Amino acid sequence: MAESRTFVKDIADIESDFSRWYTDVVLKTRLADYGPVKGTMVMRPYGYAIWEHIQRGLDDRFKATGHENAYFPMLIPYSYLEREAEHVEGFAPEVALVTHIGAEELPEKLVVRPTSETIICEMYAKWVQSYRDLPLLINQWANVVRWEKTTRPFLRTSEFLWQEGHTLHETEAEAREETLRMLRVYEEFCQNVLAMPVLIGRKSDKEKFAGAQETYSIEAIMQDGKSLQSGTTHYFGQNFAKAFDIRFQSRAGVLEHPYQTSFGASTRLIGALIMTHGDERGLRLPPYVAPVQVVIIPIAAKKEGVLENAHRLKDRLTAAGLRVKLDESENSPGWKFNEYEMKGVPVRLELGPRDIEKNAAVLSRRDIAGEKNEVSLDGIESSVKALLDDINANMYQKAAERNRAKIVTVQNMDDLKAAADSSKFGLGMWCGERACEDKIKESLQVTTRNMPFDQTPVGSTCVCCGKKAKIKIYFAKSY
Amino acid sequence: MAESRTFVKDIADIESDFSRWYTDVVLKTRLADYGPVKGTMVMRPYGYAIWEHIQRGLDDRFKATGHENAYFPMLIPYSYLEREAEHVEGFAPEVALVTHIGAEELPEKLVVRPTSETIICEMYAKWVQSYRDLPLLINQWANVVRWEKTTRPFLRTSEFLWQEGHTLHETEAEAREETLRMLRVYEEFCQNVLAMPVLIGRKSDKEKFAGAQETYSIEAIMQDGKSLQSGTTHYFGQNFAKAFDIRFQSRAGVLEHPYQTSFGASTRLIGALIMTHGDERGLRLPPYVAPVQVVIIPIAAKKEGVLENAHRLKDRLTAAGLRVKLDESENSPGWKFNEYEMKGVPVRLELGPRDIEKNAAVLSRRDIAGEKNEVSLDGIESSVKALLDDINANMYQKAAERNRAKIVTVQNMDDLKAAADSSKFGLGMWCGERACEDKIKESLQVTTRNMPFDQTPVGSTCVCCGKKAKIKIYFAKSY
Repeated sequence: MAESRTFVKDIADIESDFSRWYTDVVLKTRLADYGPVKGTMVMRPYGYAIWEHIQRGLDDRFKATGHENAYFPMLIPYSYLEREAEHVEGFAPEVALVTHIGAEELPEKLVVRPTSETIICEMYAKWVQSYRDLPLLINQWANVVRWEKTTRPFLRTSEFLWQEGHTLHETEAEAREETLRMLRVYEEFCQNVLAMPVLIGRKSDKEKFAGAQETYSIEAIMQDGKSLQSGTTHYFGQNFAKAFDIRFQSRAGVLEHPYQTSFGASTRLIGALIMTHGDERGLRLPPYVAPVQVVIIPIAAKKEGVLENAHRLKDRLTAAGLRVKLDESENSPGWKFNEYEMKGVPVRLELGPRDIEKNAAVLSRRDIAGEKNEVSLDGIESSVKALLDDINANMYQKAAERNRAKIVTVQNMDDLKAAADSSKFGLGMWCGERACEDKIKESLQVTTRNMPFDQTPVGSTCVCCGKKAKIKIYFAKSY
Repeated sequence: MAESRTFVKDIADIESDFSRWYTDVVLKTRLADYGPVKGTMVMRPYGYAIWEHIQRGLDDRFKATGHENAYFPMLIPYSYLEREAEHVEGFAPEVALVTHIGAEELPEKLVVRPTSETIICEMYAKWVQSYRDLPLLINQWANVVRWEKTTRPFLRTSEFLWQEGHTLHETEAEAREETLRMLRVYEEFCQNVLAMPVLIGRKSDKEKFAGAQETYSIEAIMQDGKSLQSGTTHYFGQNFAKAFDIRFQSRAGVLEHPYQTSFGASTRLIGALIMTHGDERGLRLPPYVAPVQVVIIPIAAKKEGVLENAHRLKDRLTAAGLRVKLDESENSPGWKFNEYEMKGVPVRLELGPRDIEKNAAVLSRRDIAGEKNEVSLDGIESSVKALLDDINANMYQKAAERNRAKIVTVQNMDDLKAAADSSKFGLGMWCGERACEDKIKESLQVTTRNMPFDQTPVGSTCVCCGKKAKIKIYFAKSY
């Protein structure tokens, strides 16, 4: 236990310094490291492996809903950005500009994509002629660059990895349906794969994407009571289609502009799951995206047959499709326990001479502290698989309970201040005026998050101005 | 047949204009399109799907050989490039430079990675302390930018997608072993997955990677007799480790520089398979990477039960893990035959009322023209799967035979000129002098490709200068 304490001391206390706890966990579990250029991040193998599982899970869902992947160039003529007024206003200050190739100046400066609506619209204008070409449902996995002032690994980095889906539709109704469909895909993925409950709803005009008519988001509730916008879907109407002159011959034989959507989620999801599930001992990874789902730790490894049996166990579990690590290193079992707890491995199996005699192993689950159970080696593949499902369900339940306790109803600014001071979300009424949003942000550093689809009122007047209000919305501090 | 002729007329004749044939095939089968910025390419869904299968196949092999994926920032301080003299000399003229964020000039210009040795070495210097940290075997899937004067879709584009593996080792022997291991991985992948024979060997000093001590390549023989370098592995020795001060405590307790390798393959592989397998009717896609492996074409689709049975067939084949498309469009069967032949779909199944009566379908394979066979619907899943294996084997055999006929032994410049004039590779002896390579390139536009591992001499004197020569090497025009 001495080792245990020493080790966990490496991570700041989650209760008293959540922000440092986060950075410690990210760096010490080797999820990521800082890159040499300010604001950049290196995703190390342990962090990138989580991203690979997230990619696979989302990509399967995109394909199941009819989307195909493609890849568009990263460098965009600056003039494209200027074609949609709100878009250029939103992105111009933070775009990286390529001005030279070697010693030669380029005739037109190029933007490193901060998002790809413009270049994709330029291509769509070429590809789409008829209603037969619609819907056009394309997604891309790519890196984007947005130069942010304040950066943190996974949460906000100058360059990040993401996916961006861009779709065109014959009708407004279809496009709106797509916008909500993909929001639901994100929600379902977060719940079932990341064991992470999210609040879904529509953003205010102030908080929407630059150039969109409507933006919807999934908001994850972090343990410090802040909101992390973890995925967005946008309804563009015909804004970009007009700016880029995308037209198709309709069923009625007339030229029309199609209706457009986009949807995106990024490596920020990794930040979300760290801050949803982590605890005082480090990461707790949801089993379906954990790079290592089961760690096997040999006890009295030098005793005859222990390592041999440990290898056999590893091979059996691996053959069953599980991601397994056997730690044969010279470190003590105690050191290893702490290491893999900090790294958030969902299941630990200890295997020593006495266990082998009993045809069993000692099992501990990361989501429930202090519990140890003997598990028979007979049929251990299926018992571990069932356990991973159970862990996922339990992690989701725990997070959902905590979230419920983190949301309070607010009627006025005092309520909202009390909520913010106690690290909670306020759910309250809003008149819809930008002035109130600005005032709330200025005085409480709280922003509107999103308007849930269930708009059953929780009051009748705006929490800020006290005027009649019909919009129910979440308020919270945010990342 | 009238439609067939009209349709194929869209593609230039492969015999008389291979170059236009290539561009036509790429654009008309919608593998790719030109991007708005000169030299860039959009990978459309049909082309990108091939890339996804290539990625999966290579990635599985990298992981099976112990490599893990990570992601390093794309923007690299310019000064990093300058730390290795040959490296900066090789890449400086063609790098894209980020000089501004919005309206603000950056204190140091940033390079959009043309390759990532420098930034990865910077991080490795931080991560590696002891021999216990070695070998370090990391791969990254990423986009890179190299501004080339002459560009062609997939073959050479300003931005391209690739993977780059970067490894560090305790000893020179281990690093050299890794360099050859990954070369063999590329070779095996090309043969078994892309049905594409390649020539493997070491590049000359002139043709090696900027900063490497040795470069090895896989060279694919295109139908026009040109060579396409389709993947490379590099042995760096301690060059970069010294430049970036990477050091580890050895088993003997002394600080040493590790030995380094890298290996890369790109979307160029798609160009390689197009030009290896394509024919006068368009693409012929190797089955394991074909986005659509089986196309089902209903005959007399309006007759009762035809579409219903076609759907059932599609569902059965899909459930068996095959990638299947059922074309229910209004286009005529003849139009569809041509469309999917041009798109290179390996297997076509026609299903009409008479076939259904016989519990059969009519099967055509893209790799053998004009053959039609009846196939029973009983057990069609396994017969189609076996057929795809057979198609792959047959495509490999055909390509290998053609390749053999495209290599001739050369003793002197006349032989080499005759080889080049008849679109063939010359295999001959070389003295090892750069002057001879330069002269051959200048007079015949032919370059050295690589030195095969089997160095059994095919002569005793240099094809160029006539002096005594011990190196056997392939000479060819190249992309």
